[in-house]
Amino acid sequence: MPEPAAAPRRPRRTDPERRDRIIDACLDVVVAAGVSGTSHRRVAEAADVPLGSMTYHFTGMDELLREAFTRYARTVSDRFEARMAAAPDAEAAKRAVVDLITSDVVTTRRELVLTHELYTLAARDPAFRDITNAWMARSRRALERHLDPPTARMVDALIEGLTIHRALDAPSELAAHDAGLVADAVERITTRPR
Amino acid sequence: MPEPAAAPRRPRRTDPERRDRIIDACLDVVVAAGVSGTSHRRVAEAADVPLGSMTYHFTGMDELLREAFTRYARTVSDRFEARMAAAPDAEAAKRAVVDLITSDVVTTRRELVLTHELYTLAARDPAFRDITNAWMARSRRALERHLDPPTARMVDALIEGLTIHRALDAPSELAAHDAGLVADAVERITTRPR
Repeated sequence: MPEPAAAPRRPRRTDPERRDRIIDACLDVVVAAGVSGTSHRRVAEAADVPLGSMTYHFTGMDELLREAFTRYARTVSDRFEARMAAAPDAEAAKRAVVDLITSDVVTTRRELVLTHELYTLAARDPAFRDITNAWMARSRRALERHLDPPTARMVDALIEGLTIHRALDAPSELAAHDAGLVADAVERITTRPR
Repeated sequence: MPEPAAAPRRPRRTDPERRDRIIDACLDVVVAAGVSGTSHRRVAEAADVPLGSMTYHFTGMDELLREAFTRYARTVSDRFEARMAAAPDAEAAKRAVVDLITSDVVTTRRELVLTHELYTLAARDPAFRDITNAWMARSRRALERHLDPPTARMVDALIEGLTIHRALDAPSELAAHDAGLVADAVERITTRPR
C-alpha cells in the first residue's frame, strides 16, 4: 500500500507586490460594487491573482477592507498634510483650504464613493472607526500647524460639509457655492468673535 | 380539445398599505445589508409580502430605492423644517442648529448609515442626485427663514460636517466637539466679517 500523500504544501508566493496589488484591487472593486458587493472572488479577479492568494495574504474580508481603507485614508491625508506643510503662514493655509474645497481633486467620483463607503462602514461597525478617527486626527494636526485646536476642528468640519455639498448638489447650484462663498466661509470660521 | 387557459389575471392587491410597507422595509434592509446587498427577495421577506408584490408595485430596484430614499430624506427634512419654523428669530434658529448638531437625534446609527448609503448612491449615479439636491434645497430654504442665502449655505455645510465628525470621531474626542465648540462655530459662520 502506498504511503498516504503528504498534505500539499502551500506554494510560496514569490511576488512581493501581490499583497499590495490585492489591496489596490480591493479599492477598485469597492468603487465598482460597494463594500457589500465586494467578495474574495471579485477582488482576486481584479488583482489577477488566484483565489487562494486571498486567504494566504488576509485572514478575511474584514482585514482586507481595513487595509484598503487605511491605505485610502492615508493617501488623502498625505496630500492634505503636504498642502498644509507647504503653506508658510495661516493666510496661505486658509487659501490652500479654499483651493482644496473648490478644486476637483477631492471630489472625483472615485474619492467621493470611497469616502462615503468608508463612512457607511464606520457608521455600521464601530470597529472601523479607528480608520476615520486616525484620518480626522491627522487632518486636525495638519491644520494646527497654522490654527488653534478649536479652530482647526471647525475648519475640518467645514471642509467636510462644503466638499460633500458641492459634490452632491445640483450643477445649477454649484455656481452659488463658488470660490467667493467658500473663501467667505473659511474667513468667518477662522475669525474669533469679538 | 379544451380552449387554452386564459393568462392568469394578476391578483388585485387590496392591501393599500402594502406598497408603503415595502418602501419602509427597503430602508430596513439597506440599513442591515447596504444598497448593494438589497434584493427584491430580501425586501419582500422583510415586508412580509409575496415576491410577486415587488414587481407589481415597482418597476425595479431603482424605483424602489428612489422611493425609499426620497421618503427618508423627506422625513429628515420635515423635522428640520419644523425646528426652523418654530424658531421665532435668528438667535433662536442658531440655538436650534446647535441643539440639533449636539443632540443624538440625527446621529442614530440608522440615520448615519442611511445618509451615507444615499450619498454613496448619489456619488456613484448622478441620477440619484435629485434626491440629495431636493434635500439640500429644502434645508437651505428652511434656514433662509432666518438667514441670508449665502449664510444659509454655509450653515448647512457646517451642520453636515460637524454632524459627521461628531458621529465618526473617537469617543475621547467627542468631549472636545462639545456644545461650546459647536455654538462658537455657528456664531462665527453666521457673523459677517467686518
